Amino acid sequence: MQVIDDEYYMGLALDMAERAQGQTGVNPVVGAVVVKDGALVGLGTHLERGTPHAEVHALNMAGANAKGSSVYVSLEPCSHYGLTPPCAERLITEGVKRVVIACEDPNPQVAGRGIAMLRSQGIEVKVGVLRERALKINRKFIKFITTGLPYVTVKTASTLDGKIASRTGDSKWISNEGAREIVHTMRHRHQAIMVGVSTVLADDPQLTTRLSVPGLSPVRLIVDSTLRIPESAKVLQDHAAPTILLTTELADPAKAEVLTSLGAEVMRCGSGPQVDLKLALEQLGAKGISSVLVEGGGRLNGSLLQNRLVDEIVLFFAPKLIGGEEAAANFRFDGFDLMRDAVTLRDMEVTQIGDNVCIRGYPVWSET
Amino acid sequence: MQVIDDEYYMGLALDMAERAQGQTGVNPVVGAVVVKDGALVGLGTHLERGTPHAEVHALNMAGANAKGSSVYVSLEPCSHYGLTPPCAERLITEGVKRVVIACEDPNPQVAGRGIAMLRSQGIEVKVGVLRERALKINRKFIKFITTGLPYVTVKTASTLDGKIASRTGDSKWISNEGAREIVHTMRHRHQAIMVGVSTVLADDPQLTTRLSVPGLSPVRLIVDSTLRIPESAKVLQDHAAPTILLTTELADPAKAEVLTSLGAEVMRCGSGPQVDLKLALEQLGAKGISSVLVEGGGRLNGSLLQNRLVDEIVLFFAPKLIGGEEAAANFRFDGFDLMRDAVTLRDMEVTQIGDNVCIRGYPVWSET
Repeated sequence: MQVIDDEYYMGLALDMAERAQGQTGVNPVVGAVVVKDGALVGLGTHLERGTPHAEVHALNMAGANAKGSSVYVSLEPCSHYGLTPPCAERLITEGVKRVVIACEDPNPQVAGRGIAMLRSQGIEVKVGVLRERALKINRKFIKFITTGLPYVTVKTASTLDGKIASRTGDSKWISNEGAREIVHTMRHRHQAIMVGVSTVLADDPQLTTRLSVPGLSPVRLIVDSTLRIPESAKVLQDHAAPTILLTTELADPAKAEVLTSLGAEVMRCGSGPQVDLKLALEQLGAKGISSVLVEGGGRLNGSLLQNRLVDEIVLFFAPKLIGGEEAAANFRFDGFDLMRDAVTLRDMEVTQIGDNVCIRGYPVWSET
Repeated sequence: MQVIDDEYYMGLALDMAERAQGQTGVNPVVGAVVVKDGALVGLGTHLERGTPHAEVHALNMAGANAKGSSVYVSLEPCSHYGLTPPCAERLITEGVKRVVIACEDPNPQVAGRGIAMLRSQGIEVKVGVLRERALKINRKFIKFITTGLPYVTVKTASTLDGKIASRTGDSKWISNEGAREIVHTMRHRHQAIMVGVSTVLADDPQLTTRLSVPGLSPVRLIVDSTLRIPESAKVLQDHAAPTILLTTELADPAKAEVLTSLGAEVMRCGSGPQVDLKLALEQLGAKGISSVLVEGGGRLNGSLLQNRLVDEIVLFFAPKLIGGEEAAANFRFDGFDLMRDAVTLRDMEVTQIGDNVCIRGYPVWSET
């Protein structure tokens, strides 16, 4: 049962923003709705970095109706000249009467200035309608804009006893079709996908986005400390998306040259025997990669976790128990001595997908 | 939104039966509702083995209104003289007009004979209303009455990576208060609780039912192949419920005598070095124990699974990742080589309990 109120319109703005996830690069997703005299008169969502913001699309659609209207926008209107002029200015020029905002823009260049600009011109501003939902759909943007580091999601698909393969290495199949469709949707919504080279050696995956409708394929990141990847690997041969090999200063320059000649980029992250994952994320952030979906294996997942580099964990469980102490686990790392030191996830969400279960949560990293 | 129909009344019969789970011993739980001229006139549920069946309580309450009534009963009325006279006969004597039954009684002594008896007297009988729900609440009874073996539920509480303790053995605390309340409810609903002696040595648990209201404590079964249990163990000293030590022919008779003198029963299951778990369940079934809740540790869980002795698995997951390859897993066993040979669970159910997740399923044991 729906009730027409501020949340009703903001919900639509968020519905639109949600659908744009994955296509705005380092920019947030934003939706805007213009309402005049009790009726929808304009709709818009930000589509791609460098193109008009949501408010602009919505105001364009509203035309003369913008004057005296209420505008619902899922993120504070920008106040600065970026690739496009400030939206707060546009709202003022159009003569809108009221602006309802889901959440403030954490971008230090905005951070309340857009709201202040609107209020200074006598526009009524209400902030916080559906704030939690708005913060959630822009969680990747918020991490990146405030830290310069990509948002890291680790996804695993395992048996109920946490195994991603049997003791002999068999892994076909664990998750069901519905779970795989969700994973491909997650790929579309991240700018990069990361796997360890062991996964390439074992499965030779494409790491592209394959859905029943076209989707966007992320940049492929292969963590390969000693450049063991074979030249025949699909991620090097199919050119379906850019491929970056994350390696170390020690890796063989000749092999690096061969890989570069195949079209891949070789990125050296630290001079130790293993890729420095923190440094890798810093370098990826500097390249404008604001989100990374990690798809294993267990040691890469475990290393990221132990280095506190994970923002979100999505675990798919198949209704199976495979056993085997030596079978590969979804998170392989030294572990903690005490239960109270275990990595804790907040805001757990559970979804049943046919006979699979999906558990999502966000690791809590204390400030110590 | 409720609609008054056969399911409406049968739902009430099942609600009553559900509440009686745990108190009927080897008997099924059954609820009955009598309806006359559009109104409830009688209610009943079977309370305890040897006491009146649900129909009898309901018909007693209905009194003269039973004549010409409709009776909803969650399990086929019995047709045989057991500890009480046959309910089908009573329904006929009372002159009821219509009987609605959720499911047939799988007891070979009934198995359709109750339905046939009613129909032979011109009573209208409808079978199958809310059948799935009815079969589910009597799943323990159905297993026991058809095989003579107790229904075995394995419950674990682990981190999301399937660990029941850290690599150093720390296990306090994993599950939350809500999950623990559910576990105590499960204890109430099983006739026995089983743990390995390692769990007694590590935690010295009471293995009783502790809820905010009084509950029934199950018989305590300790799997202890070499009778390592200390005389000081709470399960031997507190006399809060009977304790049975499952051991082998090889176990020290002197120690067995000491344990018996403390009030425990020593049950020898096989002459191998380890307790023969299949034989143990047969002996327990012969003693009238129709359901067993297994609460670990990982090796006992794994052995039961590998021996295909498990009927139901209930996994509680805390929102934690503890890591450690050598940390104890919820199911420790050799495992299967191929993913397709993994134990598969059917009819998965997922529930979120605060920040914990509960996954329930039923292993599929093929007939091979």
